[in-house]
Amino acid sequence: MRGVSELRGGIDLGGTKIQTAIVDATGEVLGQARRPTPTDGGPAGVAEQMAEALREAATMAGVEPSELQGVGVGSPGDADEKTGTVSSAKNLPDWEGSFPLGETLAEALGTEVRVGNDVQVATEAEFHLGAGREFQSLIGVFWGTGVGGGLVLDGKPWLGRGAAGEIGHMVVKRGGAKCPCGRKGCMEAYAGRSAMEAEARRQYEEGHKTDLFKLMEKHEKPRLTSGIWERAIDHGDALAERLIDRAIEALGTGVASAVNLIDPEAIIIGGGLGIRFGERYMEPLTKEMSKHLFVDERPPAVRVATLGDLGGAIGASLLFAR
Amino acid sequence: MRGVSELRGGIDLGGTKIQTAIVDATGEVLGQARRPTPTDGGPAGVAEQMAEALREAATMAGVEPSELQGVGVGSPGDADEKTGTVSSAKNLPDWEGSFPLGETLAEALGTEVRVGNDVQVATEAEFHLGAGREFQSLIGVFWGTGVGGGLVLDGKPWLGRGAAGEIGHMVVKRGGAKCPCGRKGCMEAYAGRSAMEAEARRQYEEGHKTDLFKLMEKHEKPRLTSGIWERAIDHGDALAERLIDRAIEALGTGVASAVNLIDPEAIIIGGGLGIRFGERYMEPLTKEMSKHLFVDERPPAVRVATLGDLGGAIGASLLFAR
Repeated sequence: MRGVSELRGGIDLGGTKIQTAIVDATGEVLGQARRPTPTDGGPAGVAEQMAEALREAATMAGVEPSELQGVGVGSPGDADEKTGTVSSAKNLPDWEGSFPLGETLAEALGTEVRVGNDVQVATEAEFHLGAGREFQSLIGVFWGTGVGGGLVLDGKPWLGRGAAGEIGHMVVKRGGAKCPCGRKGCMEAYAGRSAMEAEARRQYEEGHKTDLFKLMEKHEKPRLTSGIWERAIDHGDALAERLIDRAIEALGTGVASAVNLIDPEAIIIGGGLGIRFGERYMEPLTKEMSKHLFVDERPPAVRVATLGDLGGAIGASLLFAR
Repeated sequence: MRGVSELRGGIDLGGTKIQTAIVDATGEVLGQARRPTPTDGGPAGVAEQMAEALREAATMAGVEPSELQGVGVGSPGDADEKTGTVSSAKNLPDWEGSFPLGETLAEALGTEVRVGNDVQVATEAEFHLGAGREFQSLIGVFWGTGVGGGLVLDGKPWLGRGAAGEIGHMVVKRGGAKCPCGRKGCMEAYAGRSAMEAEARRQYEEGHKTDLFKLMEKHEKPRLTSGIWERAIDHGDALAERLIDRAIEALGTGVASAVNLIDPEAIIIGGGLGIRFGERYMEPLTKEMSKHLFVDERPPAVRVATLGDLGGAIGASLLFAR
């Protein structure tokens, strides 16, 4: 049946959750499901839950997984598009080595599976269906736990040798703050949620006042989520404000460097913090950026991602539309 | 005659000299000429000398300018490929506004003229005929008076919205040294020859010892040329060594940021300082770079440009081979 074969599955594999979607050729989501990423069972256990969540979304869309045109996966770590193997996905449980994720899922689901980088596919989703629709070249900046990036140049994904888009690890301050990646002065060392939490804790333990950790406990969160940061900012928490301002400075600087090099039409800001704070901090962000733009009279458009939580899964499904 | 029509002219317009070449379809240079860039007469005077120098090269190659397939120009400033207009070429005399360089030269030479960015066309020359021949994606880094850049992605020039490649104005240190462009912390603020000279003079006037300015006077140079820097380094001049090391640190950091974003196969180092110091400082440069590479086990190839002084003119002629 032709109609059915034009449906595609998408799986967004994150450190805390697995989001799946069944998407038609126009980008409409006909079914979706979400599960927590299992913390034991290793890569095989994760793959099993991914398959389950995809089946659940397929059921909602009234289709068998085997009838899909294919299932795309947006994965963290080093996702090899050619082989479907995912390596060193450090924010996934026990996933230090390589695992044939594409092959495993293809067997479980009875359909073709393609694996891509999570941030790159989310960027492509915004390009095709979201905030980037009117542009031919853009950089996606996903501001969350870390800061990831994706590139679309002249309407096509740019992957480089497979690892392009690491905008979070562009250096904004040589010899600067230590980054979770182990290097110094990366944009992510100032703007990533993990790095921000570590810095907040350091300052808190030094005696600086903040409600961040009280809010975290009150809302029973295991870490400083985007929502906790927002609450603290809404309460006028000075330490939270300082650290967000510092993050915005680093983002503006790093994005300007990227623009000076690539000169794209647009920057799309996504990710947990990006979606929550993008509009609110648009003015200081573009102001910081313009300080460092070489051609400052013609800045790129800066837009907040519009596909929200489903962007990753939709983008993954688009691995069958490239 | 078909053979003749396959010849192309190229003009490299620099702040101090005009270099022309007549190039055949294989990239061989059949004629060349060089003249100083006139310091009076404004853009029209410069265009006149460009036409003269091109005629001289054509005579050497035994061809009339009007018989050429066309003449390409690599220009500093804001060179608009679509209109052939060059604006705000601040290192050219009295060239603050816009000038229809392409149109003026086309009339003077009786052939089609295309205008491109000087660093971009030099990058393309290295891609097609020089140090970048074996690669499909590369970044050209031209380390001279300033630090310019050019991009070739998937075998094609990447111009962005016309201003891509400004690698010298990627930020390596937020809040850092003042750049000749007026901003702070750009790579060029540490690595450009102009910025290095300004810093050397500042330190010299503060009482730091250096032979740099004595050498400049002895060799009757108006500024600290690449050759003067080399002589000082050869003499073990400590201040010169410190400033070159500082430049190498900035270059390594900025290039690593660019690689993290684009993940190209190769980096081609050109420009006056790049050609003079590229091999000599290859080890510290790649070491600095690898400190900041996100995927450090697989660095891009780093090569020194091989077309030398003629690269710009050859690259300009290739505007007719794209």
